[in-house]
Amino acid sequence: MSSAPLPAAFLQALTEGFPVDFLTREPEELSEYGRDWTRVYAPAPSAVALPRTTDEVSRLLALCHQYGVAVVPSGGRTGLAGGAVASKGEVVLSLQRMAQLGPVDLLGNTVRVQAGAVTEAVHRHCAEHGLTWPVDFASKGSSTVGGNIATNAGGVKVIRYGLTRNWVLGLQVVTAEGRVLELNGALEKNNTGLDLRQLFIGSEGTLGVITEATLKLTQVPGKQDVFLFAVPDVAAVLRLFRDARQQTAFIISAYEFFTDRCLARVQRHRKLRSPFESPSGCYVLLEAEAKDAGQVEAWLGSLFERGLVTDGTQAQGAAQASELWALREGISESLSATGLPHKNDISLPVAGLEAFCAELESVFEARYPGWEICLFGHIGDGNLHVNVMKPDALEKAEFLAHTKQADPTMFELVRKHAGSISAEHGIGLLKKDYLGYSRTEEELALLRALKRTLDPRGVLNPGKILDP
Amino acid sequence: MSSAPLPAAFLQALTEGFPVDFLTREPEELSEYGRDWTRVYAPAPSAVALPRTTDEVSRLLALCHQYGVAVVPSGGRTGLAGGAVASKGEVVLSLQRMAQLGPVDLLGNTVRVQAGAVTEAVHRHCAEHGLTWPVDFASKGSSTVGGNIATNAGGVKVIRYGLTRNWVLGLQVVTAEGRVLELNGALEKNNTGLDLRQLFIGSEGTLGVITEATLKLTQVPGKQDVFLFAVPDVAAVLRLFRDARQQTAFIISAYEFFTDRCLARVQRHRKLRSPFESPSGCYVLLEAEAKDAGQVEAWLGSLFERGLVTDGTQAQGAAQASELWALREGISESLSATGLPHKNDISLPVAGLEAFCAELESVFEARYPGWEICLFGHIGDGNLHVNVMKPDALEKAEFLAHTKQADPTMFELVRKHAGSISAEHGIGLLKKDYLGYSRTEEELALLRALKRTLDPRGVLNPGKILDP
Repeated sequence: MSSAPLPAAFLQALTEGFPVDFLTREPEELSEYGRDWTRVYAPAPSAVALPRTTDEVSRLLALCHQYGVAVVPSGGRTGLAGGAVASKGEVVLSLQRMAQLGPVDLLGNTVRVQAGAVTEAVHRHCAEHGLTWPVDFASKGSSTVGGNIATNAGGVKVIRYGLTRNWVLGLQVVTAEGRVLELNGALEKNNTGLDLRQLFIGSEGTLGVITEATLKLTQVPGKQDVFLFAVPDVAAVLRLFRDARQQTAFIISAYEFFTDRCLARVQRHRKLRSPFESPSGCYVLLEAEAKDAGQVEAWLGSLFERGLVTDGTQAQGAAQASELWALREGISESLSATGLPHKNDISLPVAGLEAFCAELESVFEARYPGWEICLFGHIGDGNLHVNVMKPDALEKAEFLAHTKQADPTMFELVRKHAGSISAEHGIGLLKKDYLGYSRTEEELALLRALKRTLDPRGVLNPGKILDP
Repeated sequence: MSSAPLPAAFLQALTEGFPVDFLTREPEELSEYGRDWTRVYAPAPSAVALPRTTDEVSRLLALCHQYGVAVVPSGGRTGLAGGAVASKGEVVLSLQRMAQLGPVDLLGNTVRVQAGAVTEAVHRHCAEHGLTWPVDFASKGSSTVGGNIATNAGGVKVIRYGLTRNWVLGLQVVTAEGRVLELNGALEKNNTGLDLRQLFIGSEGTLGVITEATLKLTQVPGKQDVFLFAVPDVAAVLRLFRDARQQTAFIISAYEFFTDRCLARVQRHRKLRSPFESPSGCYVLLEAEAKDAGQVEAWLGSLFERGLVTDGTQAQGAAQASELWALREGISESLSATGLPHKNDISLPVAGLEAFCAELESVFEARYPGWEICLFGHIGDGNLHVNVMKPDALEKAEFLAHTKQADPTMFELVRKHAGSISAEHGIGLLKKDYLGYSRTEEELALLRALKRTLDPRGVLNPGKILDP
């Protein structure tokens, strides 16, 4: 796809066949809708389409296919890999006007929603029935269901509930040619040939446009206990994890970790104080639903005796729980507010984390002597957010050039330990050049063949994930 | 694929490049390996290949691809849809010699196994560590992990744990051309483009051959309470389900139902007695893990007061729990032992079950006046096993002709209620002609296009699920 101007016949068809406010070309709108939270690409779409119905999406895509116009599907644009960026004259297809929430089905525990529905709005909609869609992360107030599904979103509850993929029963998808597929309806079980839903979940808008979804819901979990533990290092974080995972006294809802450097930045930016008197190398936030309160207490007591933690605190009530969570959830924002982080979102087999982290430290020491590395993440899922902070003395351009050179060294280590270069953020534009560290040539060939099968003219989010 | 004899050059390549016991053409073996539990197709493979390594699988498939020889991948052959049947001179590729179980990883809660490992052997292997692979059904003593994954197997625990798809971290797959793909390793999170694992899970051996898998494990659940309830009809089964699902006092591990006719057949064949004095229209088996024993007791007490059940019993100890389970798990065997059942395995959105069942009854009354219909299944997942029993007075051929004519009437009803013509058994050969009741023309076209992309010469399990 080039950034050539939109064909006149295409624009005329849009003018004639759609509502007057269907398309906008206002510069401010183009700038707003052309970017996501990555903020490293200059937005430059040709137009923004704002359909109200699946039929409009279908007719728009049919025209794009006919005229070879590139389309960037757009949800809440909270992505961190440039998957929703339109920087080459594409038409942005925003689902924001399609945000209806259907009634909650209390027998099947499902709800049908349009793709533009905001994640948190779905949570509120279901909460009154004691149900939830357990897809949960910091950007839930802006992210949309369509974007959650198109990126197979992760977050803090994956250790208990799994990824978004597990919580989608049915999908309505519009194909590159504008055909509407209704996949799986509200069925829990349906083994009638290949499960086509799976093609679109996590495809980052490159294989089809999600317009509606039937979401699987679950009971709002019981009372959650929130703990913060201080431990010396990553090895201790993992020792504690192994021990916690073997307990039968509670169900782990979140097992998050962060280093002292993350905590320092959060304290600086958010003006929060640490619950501990002495500093420690690493911190673990454990959220758990007790099955046996007495056993939980006994386990807690044993942690100190067995040397698994050096300090620890349990939230007394919801306010304190929020305070502990703020230390973890405030990290990403605090890093950006107090400096310029270069972000990576990697994952490893949990069993390989300790060896990986040790080797990573050596790599960092050699590559970034004296630089500040902030490490945090969903370590119970093997997921690490690696943030390299720009040193004050370094110019931004020089910093970025340095990190761009250094990333392959880390990705080589990720490959060596059979990890992923993008655990939950996706590939988009940002990680495209590095895809080969997590995918073999055979896989890349298959991914390209599938893209050609589903989008033969290459109009859907072209250049995202991989080049043709 | 025709049933022409195997090419001489193909056979010569096998003789020269593989161990002497790699291939068997013994008539008894051909008959055994050519069929599954469906028992309605005459087995007629040309040969049975028994590889010991992924390399042998890869080289075999490369030769099959080169010579255009059809291959039927084969696990425990416990399928009920003819997916593993070889009736047209194909080469059966049995994974039975590849049954190794790797060490259980207690940090990641995973285990790597070869595809030919028997499901129950995996359970035993993990149980000593307090872990389980929660894929569980009556044929687990014979079924294999590769078959479980290739059919996305369901079973009695789906309501708690979901389908097999949710419990597969990594897959080693050999493609139609003989290329070996290592997909996802042991990663919980990996958003690096389309999740290729999903293409092979549930593909019934038509897109690739699964040779190894990294399984996700979970804690063996806590103490399970097993209840049997008597209720008058399907509507009451669903009223009770709705009520049970809203309780927070327990986690539902199974919600199964069967009708009085099923119970009568089980009692006749297994010489079991009903725990209830008076007969009832329907029975519900509930297995649940209590979170709050007092609340469970209060709920049980309220069921009678609120008219949700007419009778009920709770198993006291493991032996009684097994006795109650035997009433449910003995049904399939008992129907076959006491008559000739015509089986269907359908699913509906849970919210649509009541209306569907009412309409189904009318259809049955019109189609099969006076015939015995045995209905049972995983009703909490919307999954019904519909068994029409051959009347004694009718010849088998006449019976089968009649049911073959009648199936479309039921499938039309399934389509009307947005259900699936195959909930967990798959399509194989048995349901192929009816796939259009659950899939639109657009979906079928996409399924065919994907098959061509992955298996361009059509050598992998040809004729299963759909024709080219």
